[in-house]
Amino acid sequence: MADRVKVAIVGGTGYTGVELLRLLSGHPNVEIAVVTSREQAGRPVSGLFESLRGHCDIAFTEPDNDLLAHCDVVFFATPNGTAMRHVPALLEAGTRVIDLAADFRLRDAELWAHWYGEAHLAPEYLAEAVYGLPEFNRAAVARARLIANPGCYPTAVQLGLMPLLEAGVIDERSIVADCKSGVSGAGRKAAIPFLFAEMGASFKAYGVSGHRHLPEIQQGLSDISGRPVELTFVPHLVPMVRGIHATIYVDLTDPEADLQSIFETRYRDEAFVDVLPLGTHPETRSVAGSNLCRLSVHRLPAGNKAVVLSVIDNLVKGAAGQAVQNMNLMLEFAEGTGLGQVALSP
Amino acid sequence: MADRVKVAIVGGTGYTGVELLRLLSGHPNVEIAVVTSREQAGRPVSGLFESLRGHCDIAFTEPDNDLLAHCDVVFFATPNGTAMRHVPALLEAGTRVIDLAADFRLRDAELWAHWYGEAHLAPEYLAEAVYGLPEFNRAAVARARLIANPGCYPTAVQLGLMPLLEAGVIDERSIVADCKSGVSGAGRKAAIPFLFAEMGASFKAYGVSGHRHLPEIQQGLSDISGRPVELTFVPHLVPMVRGIHATIYVDLTDPEADLQSIFETRYRDEAFVDVLPLGTHPETRSVAGSNLCRLSVHRLPAGNKAVVLSVIDNLVKGAAGQAVQNMNLMLEFAEGTGLGQVALSP
Amino acid sequence: MADRVKVAIVGGTGYTGVELLRLLSGHPNVEIAVVTSREQAGRPVSGLFESLRGHCDIAFTEPDNDLLAHCDVVFFATPNGTAMRHVPALLEAGTRVIDLAADFRLRDAELWAHWYGEAHLAPEYLAEAVYGLPEFNRAAVARARLIANPGCYPTAVQLGLMPLLEAGVIDERSIVADCKSGVSGAGRKAAIPFLFAEMGASFKAYGVSGHRHLPEIQQGLSDISGRPVELTFVPHLVPMVRGIHATIYVDLTDPEADLQSIFETRYRDEAFVDVLPLGTHPETRSVAGSNLCRLSVHRLPAGNKAVVLSVIDNLVKGAAGQAVQNMNLMLEFAEGTGLGQVALSP
Amino acid sequence: MADRVKVAIVGGTGYTGVELLRLLSGHPNVEIAVVTSREQAGRPVSGLFESLRGHCDIAFTEPDNDLLAHCDVVFFATPNGTAMRHVPALLEAGTRVIDLAADFRLRDAELWAHWYGEAHLAPEYLAEAVYGLPEFNRAAVARARLIANPGCYPTAVQLGLMPLLEAGVIDERSIVADCKSGVSGAGRKAAIPFLFAEMGASFKAYGVSGHRHLPEIQQGLSDISGRPVELTFVPHLVPMVRGIHATIYVDLTDPEADLQSIFETRYRDEAFVDVLPLGTHPETRSVAGSNLCRLSVHRLPAGNKAVVLSVIDNLVKGAAGQAVQNMNLMLEFAEGTGLGQVALSP
Repeated sequence: MADRVKVAIVGGTGYTGVELLRLLSGHPNVEIAVVTSREQAGRPVSGLFESLRGHCDIAFTEPDNDLLAHCDVVFFATPNGTAMRHVPALLEAGTRVIDLAADFRLRDAELWAHWYGEAHLAPEYLAEAVYGLPEFNRAAVARARLIANPGCYPTAVQLGLMPLLEAGVIDERSIVADCKSGVSGAGRKAAIPFLFAEMGASFKAYGVSGHRHLPEIQQGLSDISGRPVELTFVPHLVPMVRGIHATIYVDLTDPEADLQSIFETRYRDEAFVDVLPLGTHPETRSVAGSNLCRLSVHRLPAGNKAVVLSVIDNLVKGAAGQAVQNMNLMLEFAEGTGLGQVALSP
Repeated sequence: MADRVKVAIVGGTGYTGVELLRLLSGHPNVEIAVVTSREQAGRPVSGLFESLRGHCDIAFTEPDNDLLAHCDVVFFATPNGTAMRHVPALLEAGTRVIDLAADFRLRDAELWAHWYGEAHLAPEYLAEAVYGLPEFNRAAVARARLIANPGCYPTAVQLGLMPLLEAGVIDERSIVADCKSGVSGAGRKAAIPFLFAEMGASFKAYGVSGHRHLPEIQQGLSDISGRPVELTFVPHLVPMVRGIHATIYVDLTDPEADLQSIFETRYRDEAFVDVLPLGTHPETRSVAGSNLCRLSVHRLPAGNKAVVLSVIDNLVKGAAGQAVQNMNLMLEFAEGTGLGQVALSP
Repeated sequence: MADRVKVAIVGGTGYTGVELLRLLSGHPNVEIAVVTSREQAGRPVSGLFESLRGHCDIAFTEPDNDLLAHCDVVFFATPNGTAMRHVPALLEAGTRVIDLAADFRLRDAELWAHWYGEAHLAPEYLAEAVYGLPEFNRAAVARARLIANPGCYPTAVQLGLMPLLEAGVIDERSIVADCKSGVSGAGRKAAIPFLFAEMGASFKAYGVSGHRHLPEIQQGLSDISGRPVELTFVPHLVPMVRGIHATIYVDLTDPEADLQSIFETRYRDEAFVDVLPLGTHPETRSVAGSNLCRLSVHRLPAGNKAVVLSVIDNLVKGAAGQAVQNMNLMLEFAEGTGLGQVALSP
Repeated sequence: MADRVKVAIVGGTGYTGVELLRLLSGHPNVEIAVVTSREQAGRPVSGLFESLRGHCDIAFTEPDNDLLAHCDVVFFATPNGTAMRHVPALLEAGTRVIDLAADFRLRDAELWAHWYGEAHLAPEYLAEAVYGLPEFNRAAVARARLIANPGCYPTAVQLGLMPLLEAGVIDERSIVADCKSGVSGAGRKAAIPFLFAEMGASFKAYGVSGHRHLPEIQQGLSDISGRPVELTFVPHLVPMVRGIHATIYVDLTDPEADLQSIFETRYRDEAFVDVLPLGTHPETRSVAGSNLCRLSVHRLPAGNKAVVLSVIDNLVKGAAGQAVQNMNLMLEFAEGTGLGQVALSP
């Protein structure tokens, strides 16, 4: 692979878009060639995102498949249902695609249609798409043309459960994942519930009756486990900008299992998963702006229960950072290239 | 009972103290006669708490049991381990006591010593103390001399589970209570972890291996249920000032149970518990500054699980408001006197 | 005047609307008869505002002048440009009107048109409208049919300068008002700049080149002073929900003036203005939810400068609370009726 | 100078310490050899600061001048009054020193004693110390042995006024600097006023009667101007973690001056000062985590006033980042080495 590649970002006006720009503008092997936005076409990217002034000097352009096809990698940072309209043409043209939305995350087109409210338009690509969780799927990612970049909640939950499922020490039907997200996870769209004045001093659950990340998590955990996994998943909105915290409750089937050792062994060679010492509680700010997932595991004093605490930055390891990690693998760059940021803390 | 009573607040410099002052200064039947603080003795209360200027015109005084004994009710808004040093003398003198700390919440003195790290100094009063959760214990509260005012997490969790336990429709050994609290729950004490710069843009769990509210919740739920209840309880710290949100997971034993109806029936006559319509998610700001607990119950789409969402203001229904509610019952004032505040929202 | 009056709120879905509902639902002399909203007509008010459940049991209705005309007072909590379309008919029908928007705040119709971008539709009422700042205008308010309720910034700034202008101790052409507002001042409308993710961890100025409150402040200060006042006014957005803080810089013309005494004397009989002790700094939370303005005045160590610090809750003294205060005066209720709330602090 | 130097941080447990560690751990020419803390000696740095796990693998040590003297550069991230106790010995040993505290910022030892409450212990070094504002003082910084790293407020204010003072277009006696800071500026110390529960939903001014940064700003501005500058300076506390926003009011002496052009010309070659387009308002998040100062200048519609808006991250350009910039100059590394971070936004 070339030392330097051209990338495009489709839909560069949202939070995953600007985060990709932040990360890619510092990536030594990347030239950001195209950033599209129908609405902002012609405007300098740094006119919309003041933080990018001096770091990204191109303007938004209208989406144009020919232009995109000249790039080595195209990132879709679009709403759900957009990438599937473009992927067939781009793949045919020889471009790699990383979709940060949900279009290719579920292998079952009917399940997709159920949760996303329209028929899937490129179902023939669902089998080819590789679920881009490198810690589970690294080899497949490296060979992929099309990456379904995982959702933010699914990333935090799967990394939190992977060691336990692989070790076979928990009851796969007992899992409760109580998840909390900063509001940037809701995206950069004008909507009253996400105004500061609405949720700036408040906390609430949402989507208890069903959230689109549930089938994605179930599929992912079942792939990891090799057996069907059942999950209770409740998301909550936290008055902060970035961060996801998953609190995961499991019933242990092996009362002797050394949980700390299982986690440390599983992630010993993973650069972006950090297992904390016994007895600690990760805080979301410790990963703010970084591609890390930090984890701790606690066996409860009574009964056969354990609790896993898993934190990520929803925009980095939960979106743009993981996408760059996947790109690095696909293009045979060192996996951590451009992803060495220390979290901003405080 | 007299139309107008004298009350004292011992330890009036913390958040439960100032909240008692906010509520009691507007209570038509109460004269705030004494507010004690060793450290601030001599200083006007409104010199420490700017918000009370014009509403509370007395000064802090040194604690003095003789002075306290002349009051009809003494509130202890002190750290744990203080009230038990004063209660015997005050009760003997004929004063009623409401302890907002934990000294009289556990009936088992050894359990108390285990969790609070010192021997209990007034164990002979543990049996007499009435656990001040009016929705469970109203008649006993009305007759009590000594009230153990419930903790904030225990209030949110017990109100969330009471209908289900009383109806006998859940497995008492399946309960997971994932709880989130605003930082005022940590009290008004100088400590680095509660600085804005430490937790103002972050979220974390704490006390996974054991929190003092766990035995209190287990005792309370077992009293409600009539059978031993087992609970997994994990508290979290939310970057907001006020509010508790409990997300409670249960396994149903009766798959036919009409959960919404069970909740609505149970709380039909309770002025301070509000059961929300089916499918809704309470937000903590909807109770900010008010004595309400708002609840919703969700049966999950798959399996025999239900989720209860319960929100309170930790300083009101979780502390000072509930204390005033208990006082009203003890003194035969209308239960809601002085507690009609509408939540501040936005 | 009757003991109990009927009031209507036109445009009850914004933050000033819900705040009026919070205050009026606890007002002993008021029946909330009508709350209008085109968009929400038919929906219970407490379905939109969870905090009002149990406190306000009516539903939104379509705006209807006949219905409004049956009320004793009609509050307009609408966007600018709405009240002027209804006021003539309502006044003719004998109803009193309090406009919380800007339609009647400027006496000069051309100036109004310049700042609000359309011709004024009821200019013949501009002279009759009384600017509802009771601390300046109490007698006129009491006789008024039509109140122009002051803006939030203008309230904080005028109360901060009134004693100095009346005492004639400052240069009226030297004033700089650097003002900071919580985001609820921007209203409850879907707009990207006011998302938590946009401004939840940031601070900025806006409208430096001109803000609609500038001519209102200049008119008000000139009325107070009796001479033309020049003002530099820069507003800023603070990552908090409620509160305005005005930092006001003036040049003193009388180097001997006892500023503290001037303030204390001027506001001695004002229930809703609280002059803090010398050397203190008011904080916005000390008035959160209350109708108070708290002030302090500082003479700077060098030169002939003074700084006034003035805080209000933008939704209370800066909007709904002041409107209720005006209503009380108009209807000869005690001025503070329904406005005794202690600020929520912490 | 060597390609790779050894640095020490004295007092590595505060916010400027951890920020230095964040920046220096990614600096290609730096080895962090020593981080001292009496209190934490022996503990891994990343045990205190979770965000540094994997990025900084040394432990805190007791301060020891011999050890420090073996480093090429010693940063003091200590409270005021510490560096002056060590600087003479370290300079004598041939080490360069950058003091992030205030010990060497004022050239006048008596003035220093007045503001900092003790006699200066190394007054003979005050004349040698170079005030480390590279945009003003670059050549002197490059030659310095001892750098007085500017305060956060002074950096924002001086960069905001430098073009106007150098161009001679403002009245030096008219300046008002209304400044707002995130709470990390108060440092990492247990103190009630900086608890989230105290200031998390509030805004206030402080130090109106005098703040230690005032004499530093006056000295700096007078150096820039060549004439005595008078300044009114009021700092405020914003409920956010990072960021300073200075709103600076000046009277113009040249009504024809092209302010935008003066700013753009002055900072054309400065990598860390970004002049925004006419009519814009910088937001603090646009520099969060970056070493940039972003500025805009507005001529007011009426009168001869202008307003400058200046934002920095108080921990980066206002402390640790500027210190690294100074180090780069002193050691002849490219000035921006290790300082290329894009701001974290949102």
